[in-house]
Amino acid sequence: MGVKVIVMCKKKAVILLSGGLDSATCLAIAQSQGFECYALSFDYGQRHRCELASARKIAAAAGVTRHIIMPMDMRQWGGSALTDDNLAVPTAEESANCIPITYVPARNLVFLAVASAWAEAIDCRDIFIGVNSVDYSGYPDCREEFIRSFEKTANLGTRAADEDWKFTIHTPLQHWNKAEIIREGCRLGVDYSLTVSCYNPDSNGRACGICPSCALRKKGFEDAGVKDVTLYQ
Amino acid sequence: MGVKVIVMCKKKAVILLSGGLDSATCLAIAQSQGFECYALSFDYGQRHRCELASARKIAAAAGVTRHIIMPMDMRQWGGSALTDDNLAVPTAEESANCIPITYVPARNLVFLAVASAWAEAIDCRDIFIGVNSVDYSGYPDCREEFIRSFEKTANLGTRAADEDWKFTIHTPLQHWNKAEIIREGCRLGVDYSLTVSCYNPDSNGRACGICPSCALRKKGFEDAGVKDVTLYQ
Repeated sequence: MGVKVIVMCKKKAVILLSGGLDSATCLAIAQSQGFECYALSFDYGQRHRCELASARKIAAAAGVTRHIIMPMDMRQWGGSALTDDNLAVPTAEESANCIPITYVPARNLVFLAVASAWAEAIDCRDIFIGVNSVDYSGYPDCREEFIRSFEKTANLGTRAADEDWKFTIHTPLQHWNKAEIIREGCRLGVDYSLTVSCYNPDSNGRACGICPSCALRKKGFEDAGVKDVTLYQ
Repeated sequence: MGVKVIVMCKKKAVILLSGGLDSATCLAIAQSQGFECYALSFDYGQRHRCELASARKIAAAAGVTRHIIMPMDMRQWGGSALTDDNLAVPTAEESANCIPITYVPARNLVFLAVASAWAEAIDCRDIFIGVNSVDYSGYPDCREEFIRSFEKTANLGTRAADEDWKFTIHTPLQHWNKAEIIREGCRLGVDYSLTVSCYNPDSNGRACGICPSCALRKKGFEDAGVKDVTLYQ
């Protein structure tokens, strides 16, 4: 009689990691579901580039298998307050009820496409993105309809079309409000002091407290009844 | 009576320009249709990186408004003979009847996503890509079904979703064979000596003559009855 050795391989997942609160929670959720995590961030010329330092810390704290920060200079064409210094970041009130000027053209389309490329190359079928449509920013690339359409497109434009597998785009935060996201993150041990959400931080990475992203985050901590560990200016 | 001044603004188009025969033809077609052209190439770690020198020459000869070569290092994950030197480029015979090892994971998905980002930022609604499904390489990301699904996705994940416009992904070469492409290019004055198709060129940019891409190109010139201006090793 021999000894039976069972090697359990974790399923891989690529996680889009911005350095913000949502994607840090998304990474923790993927890990709690047993995925071996590959984190992907973008140096796209964002005004709040300090979020990349946060992404590095979050990835290291989570012990991801690999973290890639992909350069992708979207300042070459601008079109957003986050990628063009001539466009000011509005306050939360100024950006209500329309697609705000902080929307970056086709950002999640690009991020998901690159995530699909990496995933396909390493035989990974699962991609996590922390989009959310409750505390809604007004960004078209955070909507469920777009995500499901992207998933279908990725499954048509890759080996998935001819082989016996499919990509799944996981959006665990899609229907949660910010307080629910923060509560789940706390339950999973996310250290939110490592994350940064502000669109307009100072040179020390301290948050402005008034941009739309700061406003959403502040309210989230309040509603969750969790101490806000954000460093404000 | 006053003098009526009519300023005709050309419609803009973003053209994916690899440096090969198909995309050079695609650019000429877009120009012949009256578009003001913005060319987009990718330095993605391709084995045949010399195609970027060709892309530069083609863009300059066509007098495009702007040419961006975007770095996007797909060697970080490989998964293709074009982005991993440990995988050999097969001959045309070896790569028939399956998705060949020269397929680059999700390449056209990434290229179209970035083209959409640039297009959206400059109020451009038209994107041209030289995919082709007759002299068919077996690449899933060249199929019409993928392109139409991408178009739908881009229109859901950008301002197009909320505003009164839509992206159109133009694929003028989709149903032409290589000889038809070459004949149309010659009619439009494309200088094919500027283009390079080989997956495995030598250090002087001379084509191998035996890779699947060389085989398709050679046959195209023969069938079109046009002198093959390719420089072979």
